[in-house]
Amino acid sequence: MNSFQTLQLGEAELAAAGTHMLGLMRELYPICRSITGPGVRDTLAMVSRLAPLSMTEVPTGTRVFDWTVPKEWSISEAYLEHESGRRFAEFRHSNLHVVGYSVPIDVSMSLDQLRARIHTLPDRPDWIPFRSSYYSEDWGFCMSESERLALPQGQYRAVIRSSLYDGALTLGEYVHRGSSDDEVLVFAHTCHPSLCNDNLSGIVVAAELAAYLRGRSTRYTYRFVFAPATIGSIAWMAMNEARLDNIRHGLVLAMLGDSGPFHYHRSRSGTATIDRAAGAVLRSWHPDATAIDFSPWGFDERQFNSPGIKLPVGRLNRALTGQYPQEHTSADSLELMSANALAESWRTCLRVFEVLEGDRRYLNLSPKGEPQLGRRGLYRTTGGYYDGVADRQMGLLWVLNLSDGEASLLDIAERSGLEFGLLAQCARDLEAAGLLAPAHDKAH
Amino acid sequence: MNSFQTLQLGEAELAAAGTHMLGLMRELYPICRSITGPGVRDTLAMVSRLAPLSMTEVPTGTRVFDWTVPKEWSISEAYLEHESGRRFAEFRHSNLHVVGYSVPIDVSMSLDQLRARIHTLPDRPDWIPFRSSYYSEDWGFCMSESERLALPQGQYRAVIRSSLYDGALTLGEYVHRGSSDDEVLVFAHTCHPSLCNDNLSGIVVAAELAAYLRGRSTRYTYRFVFAPATIGSIAWMAMNEARLDNIRHGLVLAMLGDSGPFHYHRSRSGTATIDRAAGAVLRSWHPDATAIDFSPWGFDERQFNSPGIKLPVGRLNRALTGQYPQEHTSADSLELMSANALAESWRTCLRVFEVLEGDRRYLNLSPKGEPQLGRRGLYRTTGGYYDGVADRQMGLLWVLNLSDGEASLLDIAERSGLEFGLLAQCARDLEAAGLLAPAHDKAH
Amino acid sequence: MNSFQTLQLGEAELAAAGTHMLGLMRELYPICRSITGPGVRDTLAMVSRLAPLSMTEVPTGTRVFDWTVPKEWSISEAYLEHESGRRFAEFRHSNLHVVGYSVPIDVSMSLDQLRARIHTLPDRPDWIPFRSSYYSEDWGFCMSESERLALPQGQYRAVIRSSLYDGALTLGEYVHRGSSDDEVLVFAHTCHPSLCNDNLSGIVVAAELAAYLRGRSTRYTYRFVFAPATIGSIAWMAMNEARLDNIRHGLVLAMLGDSGPFHYHRSRSGTATIDRAAGAVLRSWHPDATAIDFSPWGFDERQFNSPGIKLPVGRLNRALTGQYPQEHTSADSLELMSANALAESWRTCLRVFEVLEGDRRYLNLSPKGEPQLGRRGLYRTTGGYYDGVADRQMGLLWVLNLSDGEASLLDIAERSGLEFGLLAQCARDLEAAGLLAPAHDKAH
Repeated sequence: MNSFQTLQLGEAELAAAGTHMLGLMRELYPICRSITGPGVRDTLAMVSRLAPLSMTEVPTGTRVFDWTVPKEWSISEAYLEHESGRRFAEFRHSNLHVVGYSVPIDVSMSLDQLRARIHTLPDRPDWIPFRSSYYSEDWGFCMSESERLALPQGQYRAVIRSSLYDGALTLGEYVHRGSSDDEVLVFAHTCHPSLCNDNLSGIVVAAELAAYLRGRSTRYTYRFVFAPATIGSIAWMAMNEARLDNIRHGLVLAMLGDSGPFHYHRSRSGTATIDRAAGAVLRSWHPDATAIDFSPWGFDERQFNSPGIKLPVGRLNRALTGQYPQEHTSADSLELMSANALAESWRTCLRVFEVLEGDRRYLNLSPKGEPQLGRRGLYRTTGGYYDGVADRQMGLLWVLNLSDGEASLLDIAERSGLEFGLLAQCARDLEAAGLLAPAHDKAH
Repeated sequence: MNSFQTLQLGEAELAAAGTHMLGLMRELYPICRSITGPGVRDTLAMVSRLAPLSMTEVPTGTRVFDWTVPKEWSISEAYLEHESGRRFAEFRHSNLHVVGYSVPIDVSMSLDQLRARIHTLPDRPDWIPFRSSYYSEDWGFCMSESERLALPQGQYRAVIRSSLYDGALTLGEYVHRGSSDDEVLVFAHTCHPSLCNDNLSGIVVAAELAAYLRGRSTRYTYRFVFAPATIGSIAWMAMNEARLDNIRHGLVLAMLGDSGPFHYHRSRSGTATIDRAAGAVLRSWHPDATAIDFSPWGFDERQFNSPGIKLPVGRLNRALTGQYPQEHTSADSLELMSANALAESWRTCLRVFEVLEGDRRYLNLSPKGEPQLGRRGLYRTTGGYYDGVADRQMGLLWVLNLSDGEASLLDIAERSGLEFGLLAQCARDLEAAGLLAPAHDKAH
Repeated sequence: MNSFQTLQLGEAELAAAGTHMLGLMRELYPICRSITGPGVRDTLAMVSRLAPLSMTEVPTGTRVFDWTVPKEWSISEAYLEHESGRRFAEFRHSNLHVVGYSVPIDVSMSLDQLRARIHTLPDRPDWIPFRSSYYSEDWGFCMSESERLALPQGQYRAVIRSSLYDGALTLGEYVHRGSSDDEVLVFAHTCHPSLCNDNLSGIVVAAELAAYLRGRSTRYTYRFVFAPATIGSIAWMAMNEARLDNIRHGLVLAMLGDSGPFHYHRSRSGTATIDRAAGAVLRSWHPDATAIDFSPWGFDERQFNSPGIKLPVGRLNRALTGQYPQEHTSADSLELMSANALAESWRTCLRVFEVLEGDRRYLNLSPKGEPQLGRRGLYRTTGGYYDGVADRQMGLLWVLNLSDGEASLLDIAERSGLEFGLLAQCARDLEAAGLLAPAHDKAH
């Protein structure tokens, strides 16, 4: 039996998942990730404890569609040392202090000369910005504005002990096999250093989803891909082009640990099943959520939705890119995260899966007039029937009325405004009563 | 000539119809109706004075689609008798005092034991609720909450002199033949006892419509069906399955005697011609009316709109089920009714018929540029033409501009916002002037 | 190269056009125009200084579709002469004083008898109304209400020295040849006497557009037609029926010299390319503009949109017919006009042409994932990329994402909300970078 036919997560199960995800995030937080390098490998190794990932290493210089895999980057130490010997912007205190992909450097310069190499956020004087320079060789330091203002005059030595070398870009993948080869793609980008919401939250929710599916039977095959943003999704598609046709639905997960309302970003068509499934779940369970039309200025869904790929992939977020001040700063830290928010994000994804798993078309086997529900124990039999009707009874009537072989349960959910899980249960009850049968499956 | 080409109901004709309908309702009010039994037959006999109904008796036990015609029910007397000899909840005072379809009973019990058998409305302490138990054998009494509170302690004898026996379910039908076999179905449910708005109002409006059509020529054949709710419409469809294909449009009539604004309930598709016709009439004449999407929790239109039948049947109401407190209580009485409201309901139906009768597509015979209306006496010829344009002139221009053989008058009414009858008159005038001709009829 | 690929009108060029149009309008203002006669010829001769018009004289009595070209009308003098010798409503002071197309008259009558022949505007006591009587032989005078009230009692001689004679209706036409035979029609009605907004403004904007196109290369052929309202557009269509099929888009120009917001009147379908082009331009540049659905009570677009012609012709106005008090009065004078408003109207038309010229579909040549814009100098390469994205970068991404051969630049403008000219520039840049190629042109 399909595991999602009885999706009922108790509060205890929910709380345990939240605590577990937040714990994993604490372990992943200190690691210095980038688009390549050992930090990504360490991250994926930790995720493998929940769901064993298969790793793919794409060598530096490999052509992936229009792009080329860059050199691998690693870093051991970095700091600014004043002539007095005092050190500032030390990498060992925060991996945000170094501009990502900085070339190795060891130079002396005056504070004035150094200024162009130092990034701060004057409006947020206590936060360190996150900066990177992936595709042009450069270097720099990031620090809080208040640290910068306190820098003593004089000569500085800027030291970055990094290396850029022919290596590889690392992709991690976990596949949960379902009864069908049709796939649901779940993607989380892995390239950010010590930033929690963007995107340790996406990583831990995806990992917890994979863990939940292990040992459960599903209709769809679920493919979880952990890869750096842009170059990672592009490399993964280039390496897996032949199998892209199996992907029916996809979801990019990011920024799911803050306590704000959900934002769902629609796929390019705006009417894909994933868009409608997410829409139905959010309408029923999170009326404060917002669905937003596709924009090519997005996360990795813009790669999956490119005109030569055209996969129906949406994105689930809580905080909205460009609209929460902590984004890409040291304030995107563990304090911003909530175990409850992570757990609710995880449950929301499972509910979307529930829709994908359960969406099908049925045939009403007693389609002329309404069948007599009363003698089948599916209906109240005594009077006053206009005093108010439970959702359950409305669900039975809607499923019967619209099950002409054309409308699917998701269609019925959209038209009736009723919750999908309730309708799926009504359909199972009507099927058990001999009043409904699955229509020949022409879904997708 | 089609009678609806000159639909102009004077105020006197309207007032006479209202008075007539209210008079008939007064006669029908005391009768104890249910889904079967002598009360339904008596009701249909009175309706036959306006339009001679043909009766169909469907025997108890007959299978009608998924349902079985139940036993016939009749009742002569019922009361609760206190040990003192005082009687309460006497059927002879109100047929609402007995739960509909109560089995015969003659038992003694204490007031406490009796409590579970007594239905009241605590929030409306002076009203008697209407209750029934059609498809499970049961019994009970209804009374006002204040009567119940005043019941003296002690022993009671509960007497219901009813009988349930093999009989028949009674359907009444009046057919007005038009020039075409295409049919308009008008349905009113007949199963409620002394309740006026629901649904003596639907019965008398339907009867008055039938009376109006007698002796008038129409394009459509009009079929009026009077039958109990649910089992009645289902039985009628089962007995008449072969002729259902002739039905092009349908209207369920109910709750048309109160003075509230109209509510039109759309058919399952929401875009059927009946939905558009009712929409156009209500927009033009009753801007306070509301159109509501189809719900499978409706009146008998839900049977006609079931997936194995799929007839485009809407419902016209004034009060909205579940939203007027008198519904299914003794307060749904003659005092709630208004002759004016009934008359306006009747006229609204006639206007919907006018749209159905008159809707057709025309061809502009002078389609290149605008024809010169002035020399045909259809236009003002002197200046100042921007000071404001009468609807009449707009009607002529809209009909000419859109009559390319694709758009029908109803399409033109919807696009222009002009009243259908005005546009129909414009079309007739343009036809008389040689500027317009009916297009080959591909309607429905 | 298509001239509209670099549409950048400087403020000086704009100011010069405005001054030029207002100057031409001052010259045209005193002329007494009507639907036929020497005033129209004089007007077209002046327009020919900007763009040499070819003239067509359609003889009186010629059948044009459902209409017949009326007699030509000319007038030399008109006045009301009081018995004292004082003259009123003298034609030589304002050509509005005589009802247009008045027959010649020389009669004596009392002030009381004269009253029915005098038109005024009681609510606007200082304005002279404009009246005409084109298709029925009649005569009359117009004056301000205050003049009328001051008329001395006594006998009057009413003199109108006009003549109605077999002549011709005059049409003027300027054709700018483009690389394609597909045409854009621009129409301005020429039949109003000394009224500025309606429609000297349309005439001078059309003339200035024609002048701008001279010597510039375009894709479309632009056809400017100057003709009287109704009978003029009908006569032009009747004389040119064979070439109507070449017209792809059309615009009626009127009331473009006042300083109010733009109003665009959609073509009959409401979704024609001209409607979408005007919509895109107004949304980007004039958010206070309003687009209005087609009505058969319009200007000459109603002739072009008649069901036997069906040309997609919209109308651009500032003031809205029936909603500005000066309309069809002496207050529609040079004081109401603004050189800035005329210039902005002219630029708006050029921007609409820019959309028509530049709208085409492209193919993304690197459609799998996003191409690497950075190494082509089309992208910022250093960090913080979520701080806000310039329209330019969004334009590149939208064009790439939607250029699958189906969506045109106008489709992309509508979906992205970005300005069309920006998107056209992005497309040219991407084409230069080898990332985009025009799709096989199946436009229109």
